[in-house]
Amino acid sequence: MAVYTDISDEDLTAFVARYDIGEVLSCKGIAEGVENSNFLLSTDQGQFILTLYEKRVDADDLPFFLGLTEHLSARGVPCPIPVHARDGQVLHTLSNRPAAIVTFLIGMWPKRIHTYHCEELGRAMAQMHGAGGDFAIRRANALGVSGWRPLLDSCGDAGDGVVAGMTALLHAELDHLESAWPTDLPSGVIHADLFPDNVFFRGEALSGLIDFYFACNDQLAFDLAICLNAWCFEPDGAFNITKARKLLRGYRQVRELSGAEMAALPLLARGAALRFLLTRLYDWLNTSENALVTPKDPREYLKKLRFHQAVRGPGAYGLD
Amino acid sequence: MAVYTDISDEDLTAFVARYDIGEVLSCKGIAEGVENSNFLLSTDQGQFILTLYEKRVDADDLPFFLGLTEHLSARGVPCPIPVHARDGQVLHTLSNRPAAIVTFLIGMWPKRIHTYHCEELGRAMAQMHGAGGDFAIRRANALGVSGWRPLLDSCGDAGDGVVAGMTALLHAELDHLESAWPTDLPSGVIHADLFPDNVFFRGEALSGLIDFYFACNDQLAFDLAICLNAWCFEPDGAFNITKARKLLRGYRQVRELSGAEMAALPLLARGAALRFLLTRLYDWLNTSENALVTPKDPREYLKKLRFHQAVRGPGAYGLD
Repeated sequence: MAVYTDISDEDLTAFVARYDIGEVLSCKGIAEGVENSNFLLSTDQGQFILTLYEKRVDADDLPFFLGLTEHLSARGVPCPIPVHARDGQVLHTLSNRPAAIVTFLIGMWPKRIHTYHCEELGRAMAQMHGAGGDFAIRRANALGVSGWRPLLDSCGDAGDGVVAGMTALLHAELDHLESAWPTDLPSGVIHADLFPDNVFFRGEALSGLIDFYFACNDQLAFDLAICLNAWCFEPDGAFNITKARKLLRGYRQVRELSGAEMAALPLLARGAALRFLLTRLYDWLNTSENALVTPKDPREYLKKLRFHQAVRGPGAYGLD
Repeated sequence: MAVYTDISDEDLTAFVARYDIGEVLSCKGIAEGVENSNFLLSTDQGQFILTLYEKRVDADDLPFFLGLTEHLSARGVPCPIPVHARDGQVLHTLSNRPAAIVTFLIGMWPKRIHTYHCEELGRAMAQMHGAGGDFAIRRANALGVSGWRPLLDSCGDAGDGVVAGMTALLHAELDHLESAWPTDLPSGVIHADLFPDNVFFRGEALSGLIDFYFACNDQLAFDLAICLNAWCFEPDGAFNITKARKLLRGYRQVRELSGAEMAALPLLARGAALRFLLTRLYDWLNTSENALVTPKDPREYLKKLRFHQAVRGPGAYGLD
């Protein structure tokens, strides 16, 4: 949960007056998003999300994020899109921060994952991968394989204080991944953070994807590998192959995977596990006691990494 | 900000199905209320607030709180009122907690206080005091004068670690208040926590009072004394007599104060300052490092207490 910035009434009124969205009826800080301050803004014309971009988001990336959702939405991918102000722009300043108003998306993120969620997710992700193909702006993946070494180095050996032997394991894993990482798989725009709290459902149907603030250009199958980690393990740590099978089946209904992509899945899944293990470890070691956001336990992803290390082929994920 | 409890989709759907409020379109945790978990619930029939009562609220008090807002609303006081389920009840269980759905109130609480806010507040408080007169259920003020001694004792001398000499000052103040505290002022239902974040405005007009979870029976002028503390000091600590004058003027437009009430105001204001100083000190000393809610600085109320101690009569609050 996160609301980092208070907005004065006068500033809010002046900000909203730049848009054709009517009179503000209420504006409530919501417990969603850990990078930015988000408010549910109700006007006499409907509901909107007002986002203030805090310092963890690079302002130079905002045209990519906001342009991408507009691009995807125009091609049928359900996602919040920026509302243009009267001056035609989607980015302005509020409480000394870059700020945007985006459309409100109906639906709720699933607190308990069912197999139908995974199939819907797979389809929507593949649709998104297709729709992003002709998006003109590019953004490198700062948390792709080349970004892991600096992250690991910055943790020193402090990980050993979390789990004995963690540092050596991470170095060995990263050495392996750097040498074996594929570079020639089909690439395009990936979401890179499609965790359950970023995917909305209305009943059993997916109603939208949100929070594109890690989206970037990378190998498409890496998005699948992230979701194998984020959606297909049970709360007790067990891997659920039925969920993985549904995820991959849903994806392949819209976009077929190449043989090389399928073969690379176990390695990509290890990489995805390492990526979230490293950022969680970093946050775990560097979060102040007074932080608004409680850091997530890195050990969850250490267990997932060990699962993928033991995988012998893509069949472990339910691929036929 | 506070959202303590996650709600599963299945539980939410089953819960809302008990009400005639349509299909759930979204449900977002909101950063309001420190005692409970609050969600903004949108259905195809409108917006509602869903509240899960956490352990800081005594479940036995809920009929008082929910009954009171219904009572006040029926007499024209703008406040959220509980929605009755099909079984006629307003309280049910969700995620193992007592839960209620209340109506959504248009407006926003003022981040920066203007004099017109204070006058509107005074009028609405007096209206509430009148409307509460014939409310049948009673609830003692656990944080009235008789509740301060146990709170002070439980802090021991730890307050001296916050401000040198604080413990002796608090004991002397409490000795004085206990001996001088009036008992025969007009009494009734007071809100007891009318801070700016519990008062909504639409433009310059007050649109509602929320968060009645400290409401109780006590001397009515104590509510005014709380608001003198909560609304009439500037962020730099200076008392703003114009705001106090407006607050009292607005109040007296609806309900005249007796001579005894006016004469008691400086003492009541000291008591109100001490009440919030004690709870803030207690929370300051007893909040764990991992708490979701950052405790408020008790020193703000020490300064306010000192201001009221130096006051020589009700004229200091702008009373003629």
